[in-house]
Amino acid sequence: MIKDEDFIKNPDVPGPTKEEIRCLVLCKSNVSNQDIVVDIGCGTGGLTIEFAKRAKYVYAIDINHKAIEITRQNIKKHCVNENIKVLEGNGLDILDKLTNIDLLIIGGSSGKLPLLIKKGYNKLNNNGRIIITAILLETCVEAISTFKELSIIPDVVDISISKGKIIERGTMMFAKNPITIISAKKQN
Amino acid sequence: MIKDEDFIKNPDVPGPTKEEIRCLVLCKSNVSNQDIVVDIGCGTGGLTIEFAKRAKYVYAIDINHKAIEITRQNIKKHCVNENIKVLEGNGLDILDKLTNIDLLIIGGSSGKLPLLIKKGYNKLNNNGRIIITAILLETCVEAISTFKELSIIPDVVDISISKGKIIERGTMMFAKNPITIISAKKQN
Amino acid sequence: MIKDEDFIKNPDVPGPTKEEIRCLVLCKSNVSNQDIVVDIGCGTGGLTIEFAKRAKYVYAIDINHKAIEITRQNIKKHCVNENIKVLEGNGLDILDKLTNIDLLIIGGSSGKLPLLIKKGYNKLNNNGRIIITAILLETCVEAISTFKELSIIPDVVDISISKGKIIERGTMMFAKNPITIISAKKQN
Amino acid sequence: MIKDEDFIKNPDVPGPTKEEIRCLVLCKSNVSNQDIVVDIGCGTGGLTIEFAKRAKYVYAIDINHKAIEITRQNIKKHCVNENIKVLEGNGLDILDKLTNIDLLIIGGSSGKLPLLIKKGYNKLNNNGRIIITAILLETCVEAISTFKELSIIPDVVDISISKGKIIERGTMMFAKNPITIISAKKQN
Repeated sequence: MIKDEDFIKNPDVPGPTKEEIRCLVLCKSNVSNQDIVVDIGCGTGGLTIEFAKRAKYVYAIDINHKAIEITRQNIKKHCVNENIKVLEGNGLDILDKLTNIDLLIIGGSSGKLPLLIKKGYNKLNNNGRIIITAILLETCVEAISTFKELSIIPDVVDISISKGKIIERGTMMFAKNPITIISAKKQN
Repeated sequence: MIKDEDFIKNPDVPGPTKEEIRCLVLCKSNVSNQDIVVDIGCGTGGLTIEFAKRAKYVYAIDINHKAIEITRQNIKKHCVNENIKVLEGNGLDILDKLTNIDLLIIGGSSGKLPLLIKKGYNKLNNNGRIIITAILLETCVEAISTFKELSIIPDVVDISISKGKIIERGTMMFAKNPITIISAKKQN
Repeated sequence: MIKDEDFIKNPDVPGPTKEEIRCLVLCKSNVSNQDIVVDIGCGTGGLTIEFAKRAKYVYAIDINHKAIEITRQNIKKHCVNENIKVLEGNGLDILDKLTNIDLLIIGGSSGKLPLLIKKGYNKLNNNGRIIITAILLETCVEAISTFKELSIIPDVVDISISKGKIIERGTMMFAKNPITIISAKKQN
Repeated sequence: MIKDEDFIKNPDVPGPTKEEIRCLVLCKSNVSNQDIVVDIGCGTGGLTIEFAKRAKYVYAIDINHKAIEITRQNIKKHCVNENIKVLEGNGLDILDKLTNIDLLIIGGSSGKLPLLIKKGYNKLNNNGRIIITAILLETCVEAISTFKELSIIPDVVDISISKGKIIERGTMMFAKNPITIISAKKQN
């Protein structure tokens, strides 16, 4: 896994997704080198780049121009430009034009999460997977209720991580903000 | 409870103990208005002041001159100077001179935690209580093993709190660093 | 605080609210002995009894007959029957008939949370407070969005507690399920 | 990742290590298919089997006969017997006889953690890694202080996970016990 500090950052762009969360998203995704991945709301590009190292191809999408720029910089820094296409724009519109998706990652939705999940789920290949990372309570609930509408019971995991900082007097634990991963598999 | 932001702070002094933690320490302490409280490592004075509002008398002790100063300022701000004595110096030495203690709070120990616990525990009045708040893993383990030496099984609670920040898009949860409260009652 | 194990339990009734959570709810409530408290969804009676010890009067309400029974048993056990009235029925209907409320606690809502919050909030005395304890993600989001409709920004705190069990080899931490406390003050 | 429920369990044997923790240990380990792995305190065999799928060879060691039995059953169930050797006995003694170790995983130490870490660290190949999973506070502190003696600053991560259970009324979060992962790389 790439260390958090090895990503170029922009204060106006969220991310990168913390190392441990990237790790858990990769696990939940069950990604293989045959998979086509779509990463909507790619932010700093943390997940995009991890997937590019393990999947066949990654589409990284963000509506925020600064996110697109910083993702491009991180792709260059981590030398994974061969199998990534970076697309600036609305996730829903771009999703319309894409076909053959094995893995849909949603880290940002510009308020269109239910539509994104429904459209994305329908477009998924057989055995496709969809993963939402949520830092807002409302996103969790919206994702879960959308899956319920689709008659799917998603896997919901909330993760709280503290990192130890070893100082002279001992080990202080510094908490990272919690994040929830909601995932589901296409039911053929 | 006093809000965290209502304490005067000094960047060189730890604290104030977060509102929710002060609340839990008060609960675990079972403080009454007949209790004499000793607060070793008073830091910013957060717990000192909460106890002063509920106990008979509080001795606030810190070895750090800046902590003593900021505690004095907070006592003044919160108008609780009538039943607090602020003492600058080594907790162990000052503890030697105090008698009649119902409640011993240890938030800092300058590396002398086992001695402080043993001496403090022995000096406690009947039904006295001792509470350690720990932000270092090593402090937890040291406190627990000292209690074991005294043939006491302490109550150990680790608390992780996240506070919701309501922004336009929804509610983000911001994690506070975890803290462990180790407490025991004098076994008469 | 009453220990969790000192409440009579019924497997069909949720609760009692864990000691540390009761403690935090009491803190957030800022309860005084002048306060009239309404506890909707009293379950096992944990919060009801803690409030009865600190407030002027408590109305404990639950729609579940078994909850009413177990609450009555716990009231008897903890000898706080002097200032509690236990009411079986729908929270919304009973709330209609009550006046002069300083503190409204909602631990269960039978799916009527927005209505309960709105009606309850309007009925609160000046400086009244309303507190929701939520174990469902959906309850958090619903409470927050209802407060937003009322143009109120509530205090939102998520609490995760682990309790240490001291065994021969060391101290194991056992996690309790997280709970969220959403609270607000009547804005006069 | 293998689902927790897909391991055969024995109530007298700890484990399996939860899916999310296995996932994070794999990430921290940076395992490759060239790696020789030693798993001391293999318990139910959860980590052993995950590593067998990704590494060149795994030695699974436990002093508890029942752990050895259940690990063998799980190896058979998950069809990974080709590159695992299961060894019953004291981790320290067995470690003495092993050479060429890229990855040392310690999930149990029979009270010999400092010796295991020191001996194991010295035996590691260049770029070798050592990972301790701790459920006891004392194990964390002991591991950290042993690494300090070796002039190594380990990576310390405490992980708390809650899993959502979707019921009719909404999503309840069920907490798993926290676990700490302490890891370090051989400094050549």
